[in-house]
Order: sequence, then C-alpha cells, then structure tokens
Amino acid sequence: MIIVLQPGATEENIRHILEKTEAMGLRANVSRGAERTVIGLIGPEDKLQVVPLEVFPGVERVMPVLAPYKLVSREFKGTGSVVKVGSAASGLAEAGGKRLVVMAGPCAIEGYDMLLAIAKKVKAAGANMLRGGAFKPRTSPYDFQGMGEEGLKILQAVGKEAGIATVTEVMDPRDVELVARYADMFQIGARNMQNFSLLREVGKARKSVLLKRGISSTIKEWLMSAEYILAQGNYDVVLCERGIRTFETETRNTLDINAIPVVKQKSHLPIIVDPSHGTGKSSLVGSIAKAGVAAGADGVLIEVHESPEDAWSDGAQCLTGAQFKNLMQELAAVANAVGREI
Amino acid sequence: MIIVLQPGATEENIRHILEKTEAMGLRANVSRGAERTVIGLIGPEDKLQVVPLEVFPGVERVMPVLAPYKLVSREFKGTGSVVKVGSAASGLAEAGGKRLVVMAGPCAIEGYDMLLAIAKKVKAAGANMLRGGAFKPRTSPYDFQGMGEEGLKILQAVGKEAGIATVTEVMDPRDVELVARYADMFQIGARNMQNFSLLREVGKARKSVLLKRGISSTIKEWLMSAEYILAQGNYDVVLCERGIRTFETETRNTLDINAIPVVKQKSHLPIIVDPSHGTGKSSLVGSIAKAGVAAGADGVLIEVHESPEDAWSDGAQCLTGAQFKNLMQELAAVANAVGREI
Amino acid sequence: MIIVLQPGATEENIRHILEKTEAMGLRANVSRGAERTVIGLIGPEDKLQVVPLEVFPGVERVMPVLAPYKLVSREFKGTGSVVKVGSAASGLAEAGGKRLVVMAGPCAIEGYDMLLAIAKKVKAAGANMLRGGAFKPRTSPYDFQGMGEEGLKILQAVGKEAGIATVTEVMDPRDVELVARYADMFQIGARNMQNFSLLREVGKARKSVLLKRGISSTIKEWLMSAEYILAQGNYDVVLCERGIRTFETETRNTLDINAIPVVKQKSHLPIIVDPSHGTGKSSLVGSIAKAGVAAGADGVLIEVHESPEDAWSDGAQCLTGAQFKNLMQELAAVANAVGREI
Amino acid sequence: MIIVLQPGATEENIRHILEKTEAMGLRANVSRGAERTVIGLIGPEDKLQVVPLEVFPGVERVMPVLAPYKLVSREFKGTGSVVKVGSAASGLAEAGGKRLVVMAGPCAIEGYDMLLAIAKKVKAAGANMLRGGAFKPRTSPYDFQGMGEEGLKILQAVGKEAGIATVTEVMDPRDVELVARYADMFQIGARNMQNFSLLREVGKARKSVLLKRGISSTIKEWLMSAEYILAQGNYDVVLCERGIRTFETETRNTLDINAIPVVKQKSHLPIIVDPSHGTGKSSLVGSIAKAGVAAGADGVLIEVHESPEDAWSDGAQCLTGAQFKNLMQELAAVANAVGREI
Repeated sequence: MIIVLQPGATEENIRHILEKTEAMGLRANVSRGAERTVIGLIGPEDKLQVVPLEVFPGVERVMPVLAPYKLVSREFKGTGSVVKVGSAASGLAEAGGKRLVVMAGPCAIEGYDMLLAIAKKVKAAGANMLRGGAFKPRTSPYDFQGMGEEGLKILQAVGKEAGIATVTEVMDPRDVELVARYADMFQIGARNMQNFSLLREVGKARKSVLLKRGISSTIKEWLMSAEYILAQGNYDVVLCERGIRTFETETRNTLDINAIPVVKQKSHLPIIVDPSHGTGKSSLVGSIAKAGVAAGADGVLIEVHESPEDAWSDGAQCLTGAQFKNLMQELAAVANAVGREI
Repeated sequence: MIIVLQPGATEENIRHILEKTEAMGLRANVSRGAERTVIGLIGPEDKLQVVPLEVFPGVERVMPVLAPYKLVSREFKGTGSVVKVGSAASGLAEAGGKRLVVMAGPCAIEGYDMLLAIAKKVKAAGANMLRGGAFKPRTSPYDFQGMGEEGLKILQAVGKEAGIATVTEVMDPRDVELVARYADMFQIGARNMQNFSLLREVGKARKSVLLKRGISSTIKEWLMSAEYILAQGNYDVVLCERGIRTFETETRNTLDINAIPVVKQKSHLPIIVDPSHGTGKSSLVGSIAKAGVAAGADGVLIEVHESPEDAWSDGAQCLTGAQFKNLMQELAAVANAVGREI
Repeated sequence: MIIVLQPGATEENIRHILEKTEAMGLRANVSRGAERTVIGLIGPEDKLQVVPLEVFPGVERVMPVLAPYKLVSREFKGTGSVVKVGSAASGLAEAGGKRLVVMAGPCAIEGYDMLLAIAKKVKAAGANMLRGGAFKPRTSPYDFQGMGEEGLKILQAVGKEAGIATVTEVMDPRDVELVARYADMFQIGARNMQNFSLLREVGKARKSVLLKRGISSTIKEWLMSAEYILAQGNYDVVLCERGIRTFETETRNTLDINAIPVVKQKSHLPIIVDPSHGTGKSSLVGSIAKAGVAAGADGVLIEVHESPEDAWSDGAQCLTGAQFKNLMQELAAVANAVGREI
Repeated sequence: MIIVLQPGATEENIRHILEKTEAMGLRANVSRGAERTVIGLIGPEDKLQVVPLEVFPGVERVMPVLAPYKLVSREFKGTGSVVKVGSAASGLAEAGGKRLVVMAGPCAIEGYDMLLAIAKKVKAAGANMLRGGAFKPRTSPYDFQGMGEEGLKILQAVGKEAGIATVTEVMDPRDVELVARYADMFQIGARNMQNFSLLREVGKARKSVLLKRGISSTIKEWLMSAEYILAQGNYDVVLCERGIRTFETETRNTLDINAIPVVKQKSHLPIIVDPSHGTGKSSLVGSIAKAGVAAGADGVLIEVHESPEDAWSDGAQCLTGAQFKNLMQELAAVANAVGREI
C-alpha cells in the first residue's frame, strides 16, 4: 500500500498514520520528496482494506500495490486450469484444454422435442455442451420468465438422450439445489455477477460454474466475484465475456475482446466468449466468435434456435442449425490457425 | 411499433410481417417512401415484445413507440406520489411531499451505542430516517459482510428509542421476511437492481422500498425494475440515484444529476439522491447534496459516522455528526430557494 | 513515481531501473516486501513521463505520484482566480467572483436584428455575457456551418449596441486572429478540447478563453488542455462543464455535476456549467442550471432563442426569452442560498 | 422521419406539424392509436435535420428512418471499396483487397537511421506500409511534440530507400499541404476525428486518408466524419478502429472488435485495426491483431521500435522487430483461415 500525503501534511499526520498501520503489523517506509511525502507500507496489505486511510488527516491518495484477489490469480496457480464438466455417462466437456468448449442451444427451453432436435444438430456440428434457460432474467415483469423446474427436467432428459453435457442459469439462491439436481454446470448471468448470496451458494455446491461478466464490471470485479466462489471451495469456474455497456448503440453490448488476453495474464481460470449476447445480432455472431478464438478464448457460447422468428426469447441473436454448422467449420479453421481445435 | 424495412425488401417480406402482426391483433399501416418502406403498427404493442421482428426477412430496424413500463409511468397516475414510511409510534417520514426526506446514518451497523448516538445526532440536525446496513454487499469475500440479524435488532431498538423510521438493505430473497420484521423500509442496493427474484419478494411484502439505480442501468431499466415491484401490488417505491459508472475516475461513480428531472417527467415515484456513494469522497458530499435538492430531488441519503477513520465500511465517504449538522443548515437554505423545506 | 515489480523480478532488473532513473536525476528508494518489491522515486517526476518504464524487464506497474499539470493546479496559486472578460466600454464580466457570470444567447448567429433582440432581453434578465456562434462544428457536412466573419461582425456590433461582453467559438487555428478582432472571449468547443494546435494559438492570443470539456475527457485531461493555454502565457481561462458521454440516452449527454467540486479542489480556474448542451432538452435546462449553481459553479451558459422552432441550430435545447427570465429569478434564489448573487 | 406525439397532443398541434413539414416537401401519414398518435413523413428526410421538431407543441419524440450519411454507405456503392496508397515507384499498398494492408513503424520518427532500420525489418516481415509520426498530439504541453518537417523529410527519404508506402499524422489544417508533399497517406488521429476544418482540408487534397475513430465516437459519427472527406471529392478513405473509452482501466482503451463487422455492413470503406493504441500494452497486441483479422478487418497498424525502452513516445505498446516478425507469421495463419492473405 502506498500513501501519498498532501503538500501541507504535518509530522503529526505522519505519526498518526504510522501508529495505526504499525499496530496492524505493517512496516512503514517514509520518503520525503520536494513536493510530496510518500509512505510505503510493507506487510499484509489486505488487512488495510477495511481502514479508510483516505480520510486520515494529511492523506491525498492511497494506492494498493497488490491485486485484491488471490485464489483466482495466475500467480496463485502458475498455469492455466482445465475445468471438467459433466460425466462420461451423459457427455463430458473440458474448458481450458487444447480442444475448445462449444456451448450451444436456445436462449430458453421451450419443450422436449424442440430441445432434442437442437441438441442433436449442434452436437453433430461440433458442440460439446448444450445450453438452455429454464429461469430467464427479463427486464420486463411482463415477459416470459422461463419454464422453471419443468424446463430443467427437459434439459436433463435431452442431455442424456443426446449424450451432451448441459449448462443452465440459476438466478435465485433458493434454486441452487434444484438446478444442481438436473444440470451439469451452473450459469451465473451478467445481472447476478455481484449477487453475493448466489455466488456463495454455488460456491458451496460441488458442480462447475460458468460466471458471466456483468455489463459494467471491471475485470478486477469479475475476478473478485470468481474469488467468492473459489473461497467456498469450488474451483471449477469458467469465465464468460459477453459484452460490456458502452456509449455505442449499434450493438446491444460491446464485447470486450481485450478481456481475453488480460484474463489469461491475470488468472488461471478458463475464459470463453458469448458473441450472441455480446452483439445481440445474429449477423454479427460469426465474426465475433472467430475473433474470440483468435484472441485466445477457450471456447464459445452460441445461441441456436431452429426458427428464430418464433423463439420465446432473444430470437434476434440466434443462429439456425444450418448457420451454426457453417460457423463451426469456419471456427475450426481459425482454431487450427492458433493451435487449438474443435 | 415502427418497422423500417431494408432497401431491397420484397412484397413477400411485407406480407409475412403483416400476417404475423395482424394475427396478434395489431393493425398495420404501410408507407412506401423512395428509399425505405415503413410499417407502423397500431394496437397492443407489448404483445410484440416477445416477437423478434428484427430477424424477419427484409427488416432493417424496429422502433418501439411506447415506453415498456406502465404502472410507474407519470401518465398512469397523472401526479406525483407521496410514499409514507414508518408509523406514528416509531417515527414517520414521507417522500414526495413538500418536506424533504433525509435518511442518514452509518454505512454498516456496528453496535447499539454507536447507532443510538448517531441516530440522536442526525435526528436533532433534521434527518427523519435512520439508515444502517446489517447485510453488506462487498466486492471482496474477505471484507466485513455485516452483523446480520443482530444488526437488524439493534436497528429496530434504536429506531424506537430515538423515534425515527428506519431503512436497511436486503440482499437475499430468503431474508425479506426477516428484514420486514425489523425495519420500516427495504433498501435494494445498486448491485441488486436487476435481481428479479428479490424484486418480486419485496413486491409481495407490504412495506415501502428504496430502489437504488444500478451503476450501469439506464433510467428505463431502472423504471422497469420498479415496475416489477409495483406489478406485485406494492406501490410504495422511492427511487434513489447513487451514481453511474463512466470513464471518469476522480469520483467513485458519476452521480447523474440529470436523472432527477428526467424521472420527474417520466414517473410519479419520488426520487432522492445519495451523494455519499455517488462521489465516494466526503469532501464532495455537501456540494452534490445541494445540487440534488436544487435539481428537484425529494430527499437525500447521507452516510454519517462519528469516527470515519474507524468505520467498518466506506469510511472515506462518511460525514461526522458535526459536518452533517452544517450540511443540513446549508441544505435547508437551498430547499427553501426551490420551494421545499427540511 | 512508484514502480511495482513483478513477483519474479531479479536484482539485475532492479539495477537496470536504478541506473536509468538515477541518470535522470532521481533518487530511488527500494522496499522489498514478501510479495512485491516496490521502488519509490524522489525528484523531478515529469522527466520520467517520456520513459516507458512499463516495458523495462521485471516491471508490473508504474504509478505517478504527482498530477501532470502545474500552472492550472490549485496548489500553484493557492486561491481561486477571477477572470475578467470584455471592457468597460463594451460591457465587462467576471468569472470567479461573488457574482455569477451568466452567458446567454442563440446557438448560431442568424442576423443582426435577431441577435440584438435576444441580447437586450437576456441582459435585462440578468445575463452579463452574450454568446452566439459564427463558426459551427456540425456532425454532418450537410448542416448549416455558421455565418463566418459576417456573423462575427454582427456579434461585435450587437455587443457594443447592447453593452454586453461577447463570447464565440473558434474552431480553426487560422481563424484565431480573426475572431480576436471581433469577440471578447474565445470559446473552444468540446470537440476541439484536444486540438492542440488551436489551444496553442489561443494561448498566444491575449484574450480570455472558455474551454469546454470534451465529451469523453477525464477531468485530468481537461486540466491538461487548459495547461496548454496557460503554458503559452494566457492565464485567463474559464472551464465549462457541458456533459460527458455515457450509456444513458435519455439526455444527449450526462452533465457531470461532480466535476464542479472536483475542479474547485484541483484547480484555481473558474468553472461554469452549460445545461443546454449538457441535457439537449429545454425542459431539463432549468433544473440542471440550478443544480450547477448549488454545487458551486461560477456561472452558467444558456442557449436562448426567441423562436426555438425556427432556430438554425440546436433548437431543441433553447429557452425562449420569457423562459430565460423566469429561470434567472429562480437561479438568483439558489445563488443567494449558497452565498452568491446574479 | 417518425414523429411520436404526446398523449395529450391536440388536432391543432398535428396541423401545425403538417403545415411545417408539407411546406418542406414531405408527405405525412398520420396514425391514431389508442395511446399515441404517430406521424410518418415520406420524402427528403435530410431537409428536416435543421428543424427541431422535438420542440413543436405536442411532440414527444422524433425518430429518423434513414442513416445521416450517404456517400460512405454500403447502399450507395453496393460493394466494398479498394483504396490504393502510394505509387509503383515508392511502393504500393491496397486496403480492401484480398491481401491485408499492414502498416508498421515507430510512434514517432526519431531519425533517419532508426527509421530506415525499422522500415527494412517490417517490410521483410510482411508490412506493406511504413508509419511514423512527425507531428504528435500529446496530452501534455511538456511532452515531445514531434520532429515536424524534418521528420517528414526523413519519412519520405526512408520510404523511397526501402520501397514502401508511407502514412503520417496531420493535426493542423495549415499543415495539410506540407504533409501531402512528403507522405503517401494522411492519418487523422482519434482526437481530430471531429476537427471539421481538418477533415475538409484533407477532403480537398488528392491523397488517401486513414481516419481513426475518436475514442468516444459512435460508429455513426465516425462514418459522418468520413462523409465530410468524401463530400469534398476525396473517396480514398480507410477507417481505423483504435479503441474506445469505457470504464475498464486494465487496457488503455477498449478496442471495439464489434465495429469491424458493423462497419462492413454499413459502409463500403475498408477498415483496419490498431491494437497498439487499442490496448496500450505490447503484451496484448498480438492477440488483438489476430482477433481483428479474424473478425474481417482489412489490415492492421502496429507500432514497432527497436528499443521500446528508449522510444520517445508510447514505448509501452511497441513491439520489437523480432516480435513483429513472429506476429506476422501468426497473423498470416489467421488470415488464411478467413480467406485472406498477408
């Protein structure tokens, strides 16, 4: 922790800071420059997070030296993690290995036949995970909110029938146990990235988690949310970049491609991209999926629906099965170009 | 709903759109210009929210005519609402009347004596509500997370002792009943503005709600979240602007002063400002509180702590009791200048 | 300057940094913590701005201790500046004193009679400066671009006739001399805040400058642009907050009210607000003007046009003369409440 | 143009709007719904850009149907443009064809020998254009501002010697002629994207232009700035995405990868990416360059310096010659995967 003092800070101000920080077990190093005095603190910086040093008399600014996350940091583990999802019985997928993880399926589960048809198509085209929402976070209380447990049952049955691992969103801490019974991976949506009660619950479950980035979350906050899950003992977390909110309105969100190499430098967790939500327009999905893989993502999440016109949710960003198949072929070429495969 | 067609849209495309929309009970009006054909739809626009018209062949763009919210709209009620909080027994406050609502207190409840001392001071200085957090949403899993139910008991006891209505944050749908037993008003924090499970639960409770704006929420989304609560039958909602996330880093957030007159035009709900979270710096709180009242806010929420250096949370933005007293005097002058009072 | 080293930084890395920085006249202070080594540099930090210490082997992060601006800093002068505009002959105004500076007038100059009529009305209502554009920066090449020198002549003639100081925008370094002949104050628009050629030219002129904040400029960058002008010897700079670009689309821009107290803490330069451009909607101008004054602004800039429907530019945000007169009365009450006057 | 009326709009309000718009040659189509009346206008919409319909009595909102740009639109031309730069004598490059354009070189020109060494290396590695700044826009007036005309002479000499086309920034309308004498392509930097005087000057010159996106410009505004250049008769414009400003601070800017397919849909102009400025960190440049090409960019602009530690400007984002050579090999693989070549 570095403390920059105001120009007029007094010796009394300095003494007061040193007393407080030394009492907490930190060693201080005072540098007196012509324009500013700077105090460097050596020792357990995290102890100081709760002390509002900014309001101590004479303090101009406080600058942390260390990142606030530990368990998710690259430094903690040294190499990248590989997260396993599902089981040999019902289909297995891995995020973080040479082979990309490809999650595909409809925004919302609308019925057994519909989901099974999509599952077979996307698996045949190269997907190794099936997505589908049973609980839908909707901006409007009047929109379709998902099929609930009935949808979860369909998801499980289809996953088994098609032999493909499944992922579905959980929005309420009261539903964690329920969702765990039916799906292979929890999805935490962008709006719930800082729903700390929910993060703690999935942290206690022993099942992998797909953690989407909040639309206005910094990378640091996103990693802190992952830290909540790991801190409960669940290390099987995959990050998903799905677009941040900016001033640009041509796309629904601005998929932050830069986050991919940044996360790879800072963390050991796998990261995938969701170009469907990132752009909100099916005509842009292919380009951004390829960009994500080229930038080093460990996989993609793509919304697929046989008849986007009739989708119950987010039809504007869905690919049809045929479009998805084409994209998989193009994506495989890009993956090979950067040393990965589908 | 207005549908703008692509330059090359065919008669077949137009027919297809008309069939779909007329089947939903809308009347269509087709204008053929030199450069674009435009279809105007008359009738129940909300039915179309689930139809992804953007993906229909030949469609370039879809523009809604009506706002997506109903119950919260100014149009729905005609005049501004006054929301009552608390009871004659334990202290009563009103948001939306001539007198401003002033909520003050510490970020986190740290104990009975501390809270009672603050409650007395802020009440004497002009506050008519006491705030204090028992459940704290913290970015880091390693930070203090609040005293929980013990804190709620303290809040209730202090409110009664000091004769002041109370407000406290609820973060988890499972805690709504618990919090309702102890506090006069729920606070939904910025991070939970789109926690729809939570919104539904407080909507079912019969107790007023302070709904903070999410740091990256548009005014429209904020009003839609209020709509979730009203749609459950709970009309006692007060909005709180507490800063949005922008590129500027000198302040923790950018308090969006413009939201105050905009919300007054669009909605009947009262709106207050929170300059403590909005700026994150105690030295800026006073200026922004005055700006909020001058812009037409129905009240303020101010963090107060006797010893900000020792606050367990957010000390950097707290005022001391003496600073708060001074601010109340300045604020009263501004309130009078715009026809309000404290 | 503080340099945080990577976990694996070597003694050789440290030596290399010390050699470079000591050769530039800085004294280094090396702190070896358990997790990171930190180097504090004491001495002329600005010399290091051109050295990309981030790319030196072993460096994780570089954190400057001092603000990059000097002449504009509050520290440099100690108190606030008062900037005088115009002359006793043609009308005099001051920004930064007890009396607020009120600049009012049409977006674009459209003719002598029109401008004179507005000038008389706004002066009678309390304005002490007349604004009007002769060169208009327009997003579209097909929009009206201003009357040019003819407009400047009208502005000067009207200013003399009505006895009111004038301000007008200059967009091109080649026009600085021309504009200086006719107007009392240069306006640098938001789009040109980092047009460094232009800043240097108005810095060389001996005439006051109104420097608008760029819509995506940090406060630090804004002050650096002011520094360009002061560094040429022209100290008569007034800052103008006119809204930043955020994700919110209800208002044209988000007027950053927080910038007012921040600038007052960091700089000695006066600061005013422009609620007309800040909001883009005439129905919001009054609330935000009052908020600006309550927050401590030294004045306001308001667009006024007798017939907004027929304005050649930005009619949607203009007040009529009658609306302006009402606003001045309301604004005077708020000004008095915070110890200022109109 | 679509005009949505307020709920209480009167027949008199409607008549007033119709009179005004019909007088301008537009045909109106009035739809009366239960909740809103909507007026659709058919005819030359651009005439209405100067009429502030938002302030007409009874108007709630105005929605344009057509994009404000014409010459740059995809619709105008039908296919993509290929922009030729340089000459057979001094090296020729094309943007928009199958082969990618690769612009590489130092941020600032520092001398003949240095530039020639880089030019040879980057050309050998696959670059077909040399970049180098002689006029540098710097946030601080105290930073190195470029070598000026001396730098231009060096650029020209090196371009001839190495047989490679050149591009350099022009910041001041007074320098357009000068720069045109020495370089093959003008660069308009992000800060000058809306410097309309400068855009008009390069529009009059008969030399290609690289137009960078402003850090807070929407894609629409960016295309409007290109329209300024084309409207003067200069059609040889290449767009360059170089990052927008968002709340994220891990990268200097957020390179908006989504802009690439969006621009391809909206415009016929070629578009390249600048990952050096986009990220500000050399360790991220490679990933983002590959992402750009995968997303469909027509080329890249990469900063290269033999000794980033000693670069006079932006050293933190430079690649060394060896790093650039490696990147070209990786980029060639990605280019092939998407049907392009280097």
